[in-house]
Amino acid sequence: MAEEASLPSNECPVARTLEAIGDRWSLMIIREAFDDVRRFSEFQKNLGVARNILTSRLKALVATGVFDVAPASDGSAYKEYVLTDKGRAIFPVVISMRQWGERYLFAPQEARSVLVDNASGQPLKPLVVLSSSGQPLGAADCHRVRVSVADA
Amino acid sequence: MAEEASLPSNECPVARTLEAIGDRWSLMIIREAFDDVRRFSEFQKNLGVARNILTSRLKALVATGVFDVAPASDGSAYKEYVLTDKGRAIFPVVISMRQWGERYLFAPQEARSVLVDNASGQPLKPLVVLSSSGQPLGAADCHRVRVSVADA
Repeated sequence: MAEEASLPSNECPVARTLEAIGDRWSLMIIREAFDDVRRFSEFQKNLGVARNILTSRLKALVATGVFDVAPASDGSAYKEYVLTDKGRAIFPVVISMRQWGERYLFAPQEARSVLVDNASGQPLKPLVVLSSSGQPLGAADCHRVRVSVADA
Repeated sequence: MAEEASLPSNECPVARTLEAIGDRWSLMIIREAFDDVRRFSEFQKNLGVARNILTSRLKALVATGVFDVAPASDGSAYKEYVLTDKGRAIFPVVISMRQWGERYLFAPQEARSVLVDNASGQPLKPLVVLSSSGQPLGAADCHRVRVSVADA
């Protein structure tokens, strides 16, 4: 994966994503949200995170548009943090991290959680980077190009 | 994506991956490595990262098995940081972050870098989470199960 030319770092979508959601707490909060966690107290209990950190991360994720704040679904006074379409689109990021962890960070006999399809009970297919015509690609098969307003 | 039961957090592959590679600098270093950057001075120049931070992150990534340290490929005295198989397997994580950033973090006319296939010059296919039989899955279509030694 070579560059055609040196690219300003603020034009790199990876760098922007890391700025927006790329710290451990933010990604752990998003992982919890994919498990249907919606309330401050639940995030706090499940993650064991300090309240001030959780407050700042949730605020930033709302500002970024990953979560909407909604009234509690049970009619109580609590607020709920609900993933937006933009937030739900982070699913492949969480799954790619999960699959790498499953494969490389556990000893063969070590207890772990595995994500399975509700319908079949089978583990998911490993994510594979594909070309537009469906060929599997590694980093060496790709390069970055700069798209600017003039090209658009 | 619901849990069958409360899972100890150290059994979650997402949490382990975030512990191993889940900070911005580590992921930016790995992104650079996918662009064939191998030397300390190149990482430092491209990322503008402080030397002590770069030193500690590279050391941790070598300890985790993401990089091997090798003699310079040009025969000079420099060391090179070369992605291992385990390191190269992080490619879908970087691509999933890139694709989310491309889609959600740029204004329509804003300059950006785009990753294309060397062979066709076309952008890559968006990563889609699939069931073992190839059906696209969202978070609500999956649940976590605990796999322990007794089941293995």
